[in-house]
Amino acid sequence: MSTPPQTDRIRGVLSPVVTPFDRELRPDGERYIQHCRWLLEQGVGLAVFGTNSEANSMSVAEKIALLDTLAAAGLPAARIMPGTGCCAIADTAELTRHAVRLGCAGVLMLPPFYYKGVSDEGLFRSYAQVIERVGDSRLRIYLYNIPPVAQVPISLSLIERLLKAYPGTIAGIKDSSGDWSNTRAMLEQFQPHGFDVFAGSESFLLATLRGGGVGCITATGNVNPGAIARLARSWQQPDADVQQAALNTVRGMFQQFPMISALKATIAHYADDPGWAAVRPPLVELDETQRAALVQALDAAGFAMPGLGS
Amino acid sequence: MSTPPQTDRIRGVLSPVVTPFDRELRPDGERYIQHCRWLLEQGVGLAVFGTNSEANSMSVAEKIALLDTLAAAGLPAARIMPGTGCCAIADTAELTRHAVRLGCAGVLMLPPFYYKGVSDEGLFRSYAQVIERVGDSRLRIYLYNIPPVAQVPISLSLIERLLKAYPGTIAGIKDSSGDWSNTRAMLEQFQPHGFDVFAGSESFLLATLRGGGVGCITATGNVNPGAIARLARSWQQPDADVQQAALNTVRGMFQQFPMISALKATIAHYADDPGWAAVRPPLVELDETQRAALVQALDAAGFAMPGLGS
Repeated sequence: MSTPPQTDRIRGVLSPVVTPFDRELRPDGERYIQHCRWLLEQGVGLAVFGTNSEANSMSVAEKIALLDTLAAAGLPAARIMPGTGCCAIADTAELTRHAVRLGCAGVLMLPPFYYKGVSDEGLFRSYAQVIERVGDSRLRIYLYNIPPVAQVPISLSLIERLLKAYPGTIAGIKDSSGDWSNTRAMLEQFQPHGFDVFAGSESFLLATLRGGGVGCITATGNVNPGAIARLARSWQQPDADVQQAALNTVRGMFQQFPMISALKATIAHYADDPGWAAVRPPLVELDETQRAALVQALDAAGFAMPGLGS
Repeated sequence: MSTPPQTDRIRGVLSPVVTPFDRELRPDGERYIQHCRWLLEQGVGLAVFGTNSEANSMSVAEKIALLDTLAAAGLPAARIMPGTGCCAIADTAELTRHAVRLGCAGVLMLPPFYYKGVSDEGLFRSYAQVIERVGDSRLRIYLYNIPPVAQVPISLSLIERLLKAYPGTIAGIKDSSGDWSNTRAMLEQFQPHGFDVFAGSESFLLATLRGGGVGCITATGNVNPGAIARLARSWQQPDADVQQAALNTVRGMFQQFPMISALKATIAHYADDPGWAAVRPPLVELDETQRAALVQALDAAGFAMPGLGS
């Protein structure tokens, strides 16, 4: 593992873009493009099809259609990192192949997540199969470690083995373990070998950047992108810890509620577009009490989403 | 909930049919049909696309193609209960619609299983959406409760609500909770109202039948179907407890190993067809030591699969 740090790779802050749905719960391309453009303007990249995008509540065909919508709207593929990991390798390979063809910066790949307690050997074979089926040297895979949801962790020894076998392709990780000691171990062991570590939320953004990592991919990037992106740019400035504390305060307000529904309710409120609040089952929108409490807390804190819906 | 017990419904023993793959890990239609025919001859129905079928390691298109293969081979749809529950409602609805069109006895439906800690309201909406999208009075849904794998339990209050809303459509459950008190509660509360309870394995077959349930859907039905089906037919005979004990002994041998790989290794051995052992990642075949230990234990116990591969 002597690969030097890669300088041409995507870094900074990305957001798992929340997916707007219309009245029939179909993906709403118009609202989607508008939100993606706003995020880019705020300095945040597009980790479409993440956990907070309700990605696994969409079919492969729906996700391919949304990628095509982004491409047709002229959004820069170099700023897009779609989530492509499904339970079935054929699905993962199909979606990944499409992302590579469109020139996306990379893909964020969950392990297959139906079976629990699977071996590292089985997970290695899963990633290897996808890499071989896609068969494209442009492929950049960011592993997606989110054991609280997927319940299938990506171990340090699996990363080591994948990096050795596919050094040009295994490009990094989003660590949503919520366990800083795990992120730190990745930073120490793998970042020096060209394996780019993204924190799983802005809570660990400053620590990750100080540890040599490249940024974060965070749900609240959907609503607070400007401030999070500012810390990623200015983390070596004297006010970095103050910035980090302010980000934590905003994030804390959202963590009082089911995150995805809260993000969508917030966009609906500040864009004055109630339709934005729709989620697909098994998720449920905030009820009116929750919605009012969230908006009141945000307003009281002087929260704003400048330029949204404009 | 005054629906009387339904007598025209599928009952007895079903097996989540293990899916054979060829060298390129494509589903192998020829081996599949042969195994399904053997299971039917042994008195066991076909719960294709279960957990033990590696169903979630296959795309929707692959599963539809396999259903068509079964239909083209003339296998009786009235003995087939495909698993159709995916993470995305569009996928679940598509696969379910196809099963209904082919006249399948019912479908076994996982809840969406990516998000954890979801509400009963969200799960209710998930099932409701599928029922409404399929929109066919022939639809019979068997809920699939398997919290050790899916990590998304189906609660008694969710069952009650679904039964009230869709009394003709919600037909029963496979309870793979492994918790007899849970199965017993379903038998007591819902079986009298036409909600057919299948135990999640033959370990609870006799207890389930004595409690008014209709049978079991069990992994080891793939390898020990005749004996399990015999208990389902003769459970009121004096030797029922002896039969149950014998079933437990056989099951115990398989439980020493990763179940799916062990089932396939067993079929490969007794059918003298090594290709049967293939599994898709993230699963891994038994290694040679495991395989030898399993075969030795089975041979020592006088285990046989009469008529297999003939």
